[in-house]
Amino acid sequence: MPTRGVAILGSTGSIGCNTFRVLESLGEDGFRVVALGAGRNVSRLADQIARHHPELVSVENEEHSEQLKAELQKRGVATPRIATGAEGLIAVATHESADCVVSATVGAVGFVPTLRALEAGKRVALANKETLVMAGELMTRAAEKSGAELLPVDSEHNALHQCLRGEKRSEVRRIILTASGGPFRTRDQAAMSSATVAEAMKHPTWNMGAKITIDSATLMNKGLEVIEARWLFGFDADEISIVVHPESIVHSMIELVDGSVIAQMGVTDMRHAIQYALTYPERYPSELPPLDLARLSSLHFEEPDLERFPCISLAYRALRTGGTLPAAMNAANEEAVQAFIGERISFSDIPQVIERVMDGHRSGDVTNLDDVIDADRLARASAQAAITRLSREVRATGVV
Amino acid sequence: MPTRGVAILGSTGSIGCNTFRVLESLGEDGFRVVALGAGRNVSRLADQIARHHPELVSVENEEHSEQLKAELQKRGVATPRIATGAEGLIAVATHESADCVVSATVGAVGFVPTLRALEAGKRVALANKETLVMAGELMTRAAEKSGAELLPVDSEHNALHQCLRGEKRSEVRRIILTASGGPFRTRDQAAMSSATVAEAMKHPTWNMGAKITIDSATLMNKGLEVIEARWLFGFDADEISIVVHPESIVHSMIELVDGSVIAQMGVTDMRHAIQYALTYPERYPSELPPLDLARLSSLHFEEPDLERFPCISLAYRALRTGGTLPAAMNAANEEAVQAFIGERISFSDIPQVIERVMDGHRSGDVTNLDDVIDADRLARASAQAAITRLSREVRATGVV
Repeated sequence: MPTRGVAILGSTGSIGCNTFRVLESLGEDGFRVVALGAGRNVSRLADQIARHHPELVSVENEEHSEQLKAELQKRGVATPRIATGAEGLIAVATHESADCVVSATVGAVGFVPTLRALEAGKRVALANKETLVMAGELMTRAAEKSGAELLPVDSEHNALHQCLRGEKRSEVRRIILTASGGPFRTRDQAAMSSATVAEAMKHPTWNMGAKITIDSATLMNKGLEVIEARWLFGFDADEISIVVHPESIVHSMIELVDGSVIAQMGVTDMRHAIQYALTYPERYPSELPPLDLARLSSLHFEEPDLERFPCISLAYRALRTGGTLPAAMNAANEEAVQAFIGERISFSDIPQVIERVMDGHRSGDVTNLDDVIDADRLARASAQAAITRLSREVRATGVV
Repeated sequence: MPTRGVAILGSTGSIGCNTFRVLESLGEDGFRVVALGAGRNVSRLADQIARHHPELVSVENEEHSEQLKAELQKRGVATPRIATGAEGLIAVATHESADCVVSATVGAVGFVPTLRALEAGKRVALANKETLVMAGELMTRAAEKSGAELLPVDSEHNALHQCLRGEKRSEVRRIILTASGGPFRTRDQAAMSSATVAEAMKHPTWNMGAKITIDSATLMNKGLEVIEARWLFGFDADEISIVVHPESIVHSMIELVDGSVIAQMGVTDMRHAIQYALTYPERYPSELPPLDLARLSSLHFEEPDLERFPCISLAYRALRTGGTLPAAMNAANEEAVQAFIGERISFSDIPQVIERVMDGHRSGDVTNLDDVIDADRLARASAQAAITRLSREVRATGVV
C-alpha cells in the first residue's frame, strides 16, 4: 500500500490525540501526517508539529498563530505554513497531499471543512457527528458525487460499519445502537435537575471530551447518533433502535431479516475505531489488549428510559421531521450544554431549551449550506433566549 | 431463484424435523423435498412422505421398508422408491434432483453419504459434526474438488460462518466458540461421577437429541466443534478458543487482528441455522420471534473448567495430533456415551474410556475412506473393552 497522507481536524482534542497514538503504533510506513487543524491549544499543537512535521497547520486566529511561532522557535522546530480560522480548517481539510481527513473537531465548527473534504473526494474518518446531524443529506450527496468514502469513527457507527461489511442492505431489518446510559442511568427523575457539572462529567465507560460527555449524560449523544446512523447507512427512524448496555462492550448491532443479530464488541478505546477508519478495507494488527469476556463476566442490557432522558425522543422527532430541524436541534443542544457547563441552567433544563427551540423552529428544506447555517444561527439565538429565561426562572424560584 | 431440491439425511431426527418446519415457513416457492433418509422411525417418515412427496426415501432395513409401505397404505399415500441401509442413505445423499443435502444423521452413520454428496457437488448443510471430526481432510478436499459448498448447521459454526462473511481469513486472529456449559456447569468435581442420565439429559438452553445432549454435558460436544471449526474454516488449534456462555445467546465470535470482536447472536432455535444454510447467500425473512436483549437483561461469560471437563483437552489433543486420532476419539466417545445411557458406566467414566482408547491408538494418515473406517472400528472395539473393564471396576468397588 502506498503511503497515505492524513489531515486531522481537531488534532489537539481527544480524538486527535488518539489518532496520533494509532499512527505511531502503526509505524511510519503506511501513513504520513500532512496537515493539522487545531484551535487554541497552541502548546500541544507545537508538540505535534515537532513530532510529525506537517506541511500545513491551522489555529483559531492571528494571536494563536503568533503564539505557535514562538512555541516552535522555543523548541527549535521549523515552522510549517500556518492558516487561521474557518478558512484555515478548510485548507487543512482539502490539503492536496491528504488522502484521509480525520474530522474530529467538537461541535458545528467542523461542518464546512468536512463538507469540503468530501467534495474534494477525500476519505473522511468522521468523529464529528454534528456534521451529519446538521447536514446529512448535503454530506452524503457530496460524497456520492465525488466518490469520497465516509468512515465513522464513533464507536457505535464504526461497529455498525463492521457488522454491515458482509450483509446486503435489503437483508438488514434494523440497526441497534448501544448506549452506556451515562452517569445518570440509575438516577431518580426527581434528582435529575440537581445534577452537577462534575457529576455529569463522570462517564462510566468512555474517557472523552466535555461536550460529548455531557451529551452522554443527557443521552442526546445517542439521539445524535440515531440521526448520524440514518445518513451513514440509510436506515429510517423506525429501523434504528437503542438499547442501554452499561458496560459499553457491545458497540452496536444489526438485526437481519432472518432474525440473526450481528454485534461488534471490543474494549472501550477509541483507537480501535480510528485505526479501522484509517486502514479500511484492511485491518491492521493492533497492540491494544484483546477483549476478555470471561474476565468481564457479564454484560447487561435494558430499554432506554424515555421519561428521564427526553433528548432521545427529541432526536427521533428531529429525524422524522427532517429538513433543517436536526440542525436547529443540534445548535440548541450545543448552546444548552455550554450553558449547563457554565452553570447558567440546570441539567434538566438542557432538553427544555432544545424543545423550546424545536417548537419555535420552522423547518425548511436543506438545499445548500446556507440553509443549514441559517438554521444553526437562528436556533442558537433562540436557545440563548430560552437559556436566559430559564436561568431567570431558576433565580426567581431559588432552585439551583 | 429457481426451486432447489432438498435431500435430508436423518429426516425424522431433531434437525430433520426442524428442517421441515423451516421449509414450510419459507413456503413452497424456493425449495422442494426430493429425498429423505431415515432410520427406524417409520411412522414419522410416513407423515413426512404424506406431506412432502419425495421421490426417494431410505430406511434402516427391509423390515422397516415393509413397515413403511404398510404405514403409507394406511394413510392412502403413494409409495415412493424405498432404499435401505448404508447404500440407501448414499442414494438419498446423491439423488440427482437434490441441490442441497441436509446432513443430520446422528453419529458416524452419516459419514459416507455426506462424503458422496460433497463429491457429487451438492451443497451440504452439515449438522452431523462427527463427519468433519472423523475425516475433515477428506471432506474438505472432496468439496474443493467438486466445488461443493459446505454450510454448517451447528449453531456455533453457523454463527462463525456469518461472522466471517465480511472478513479476510488473514485478518482473523482467532475464533471463539461459545459453550453453554451444559447441565453440570456448576457441579462439583466430586459429584460428577454420580451424575445420572436423566440429569445429563437436562440441557439448560437447547432442546436436542440424546447423543448431542450427553456430549453437551461432558463438553465433548464443544471439543468436537473445535475440530469441526478447524476443517470448516481452516483455523489451527491455537486459533480456536472456547468461552462458557450459559445463556447460549451469543452463538460464537471471531476476533480480528485489530482486536475487534464480531459476534452472532440469536434466540436458541436451530431453525435459524438451518434456514441460513438453505438460503445462503441470501437471507430470507424468518417468522421466529426476534432477539430481545433488554428482556434477557444479562449475558454471562466464563472460562471453561478443563479439570471438570477433560473431554475438551482430549479433543484439542486429537486435533493437534491429527491423522486418524480424531476419528478414534469420536468413535470412543460414541461408544462411551451409549454405555453411559445404558447405565454401564458412570458419567465421569466417559472421558476415561476415550482417553484409554486414544492412549492405545496408533494414529496414521488419512489418505482414504478405509483409513477412517478402520480407525473407527478399532477404536470402537477398544472402547468396548475399556467399558467392560470400567463397568467391572464399578461393580468391584460398589460405586455407581
